[in-house]
Amino acid sequence: MEDSQQPPPPPPTTTATNGNDNRPIAIVHYIPIPNLSFFQFISETVNLIHASDSLFSIHRPSARAVVVLGSTPLKSEHLDQYPSVEIVIGTSAGLDHIDLAECRRRNIKVTGAGDAFSEDVADYAVALLLDVLRRVSAADRCVRTGLWPVNREYPLGNKLGGKRVGIVGLGSIGMMVSKRLEPFGCTIAYTSRNKKSHIPYLFYPTVLELATATDALILCCALTDKTHHVVNREVLTAMGKKGILVNIGRGAIVDEKELVKLLVEGELGGAGLDVYEKEPEVPKELFTMDNVVLSPHKAVFTTESFEALRDVVIGNLKAFFSNKPLLSEVNPNN
Amino acid sequence: MEDSQQPPPPPPTTTATNGNDNRPIAIVHYIPIPNLSFFQFISETVNLIHASDSLFSIHRPSARAVVVLGSTPLKSEHLDQYPSVEIVIGTSAGLDHIDLAECRRRNIKVTGAGDAFSEDVADYAVALLLDVLRRVSAADRCVRTGLWPVNREYPLGNKLGGKRVGIVGLGSIGMMVSKRLEPFGCTIAYTSRNKKSHIPYLFYPTVLELATATDALILCCALTDKTHHVVNREVLTAMGKKGILVNIGRGAIVDEKELVKLLVEGELGGAGLDVYEKEPEVPKELFTMDNVVLSPHKAVFTTESFEALRDVVIGNLKAFFSNKPLLSEVNPNN
Repeated sequence: MEDSQQPPPPPPTTTATNGNDNRPIAIVHYIPIPNLSFFQFISETVNLIHASDSLFSIHRPSARAVVVLGSTPLKSEHLDQYPSVEIVIGTSAGLDHIDLAECRRRNIKVTGAGDAFSEDVADYAVALLLDVLRRVSAADRCVRTGLWPVNREYPLGNKLGGKRVGIVGLGSIGMMVSKRLEPFGCTIAYTSRNKKSHIPYLFYPTVLELATATDALILCCALTDKTHHVVNREVLTAMGKKGILVNIGRGAIVDEKELVKLLVEGELGGAGLDVYEKEPEVPKELFTMDNVVLSPHKAVFTTESFEALRDVVIGNLKAFFSNKPLLSEVNPNN
Repeated sequence: MEDSQQPPPPPPTTTATNGNDNRPIAIVHYIPIPNLSFFQFISETVNLIHASDSLFSIHRPSARAVVVLGSTPLKSEHLDQYPSVEIVIGTSAGLDHIDLAECRRRNIKVTGAGDAFSEDVADYAVALLLDVLRRVSAADRCVRTGLWPVNREYPLGNKLGGKRVGIVGLGSIGMMVSKRLEPFGCTIAYTSRNKKSHIPYLFYPTVLELATATDALILCCALTDKTHHVVNREVLTAMGKKGILVNIGRGAIVDEKELVKLLVEGELGGAGLDVYEKEPEVPKELFTMDNVVLSPHKAVFTTESFEALRDVVIGNLKAFFSNKPLLSEVNPNN
């Protein structure tokens, strides 16, 4: 895997030329994935050059922009290959795969997906919480296996209304999740780097204190050194035996081994997981559990969100090449 | 099945007596089901007599109250067995199994579950719509079958925000569904017996007009002669090929054969179904579809909703036997 993070060497020069093309150049940085064509929409705005392109070796030293596809790692050694780069355009909701500190050090601007994915991720968080509480996927499985006529005593789920829900990371996604949960009758509390003024929800300074005061945690924060494994055994058990974890952030925010252990032991009520520590590996112990909903890192995936992503990526590229303000520059203090 | 709707003949007298018991009497009307004990909570308030009880033949002619368990049919011929009954206590969200017209004719009051189930049903409607749009159950199935590492190109779902959602039947459940969908960014429209004043949502006088103007229909109405098969082929196709149907009402509101045909033909976008025309039979053609979510008539089933049901059933019984206003009398004009 580590090797495949390096772009492959450029192939022999093909018939492709840069001819009379006046479009600015941007390098595409990516682990070779089959659906690169999906991102070709960008090429209406910039001349996208990628590692297998015949012109890669010509443009690599002078390109001012790099577009990072998905969660392709962009570390110091990768940046060394792009010595003229001034901007890194991220295309994902989380940017933990990009070495932001190193970009800062090199004075390279970084943009993210902005809010292109936020609403869809927030929707998905609510969907996972509802599914775990009300056993929707488990019910669907029961019907499809023909068990309904046989076993009509279906176990009761739990009501969403009245639940105390703790949001870990009250950024734009966390706020959207909260707004969606309010009319269900949930009580919202949160933890975040700082207490937010003008926010009516109860603030707890630590995840542990938040977990102690709530029935469900929804992880909406970024993965950083500070949030790595911040949801550990102590935090998970603090919610009690009926506690529910929803993770639409990043797998490594949670100590996954402990999460699995607690679920196996019946010490946690359930979990709705879109992300895992070693994707696409999912702990097999979870495959037989009806109180767990497993999703293949797809909370951002809708036709509409990719259209929004296209707009923000193209917008950032146009803004950069015409010296206008960027649409979704990442806060350098993050 | 028809036979089992008749209470079995009372068994020989047992040691059970009514002794010094001052509690009023209520007959329990039910198709024998294994979890009758679940409803024994009522017996703290009234002396529940059921068909297999030794005292049934003594109390049947004089009992003033009948409690109908679940969806046990209560038709004219059943009412003939309870000649003194003055009140029928329903325990389900829909009351289509009770002959309301006949109860009216006999001057028998009828109470329903009131709002005991409403919030849970509304939550479940949102869960089904989210699941169909975002393919949560299908994703869970994909992960559990170990397909994620093999097939990483997961089909895109669709965003809930921006969708025009049509509510069929804007009673308390329909209103709760609407309130929950608002912060997702949905546009709500509805059809109902009458246009509601002070409701900001757009009203359409017929289901067909509503379907023509919306991307998804959520069926929240009761099953009556007027709503039987009201969602027919014409209505379903009016939503267009991406249209979605969510049914948490009753199976027979929809022409199920046509629904299945349209889904098989790809003429409808998807469906989230909690109810079916011939439960527990579910059309097998749906078992292989990823754009369909199948649920075994459990939208009302939570620990909390059954506690709320207990309160409303006991409340109605207490009110009746003390000549106080009933908590959830069914509108005799319905």
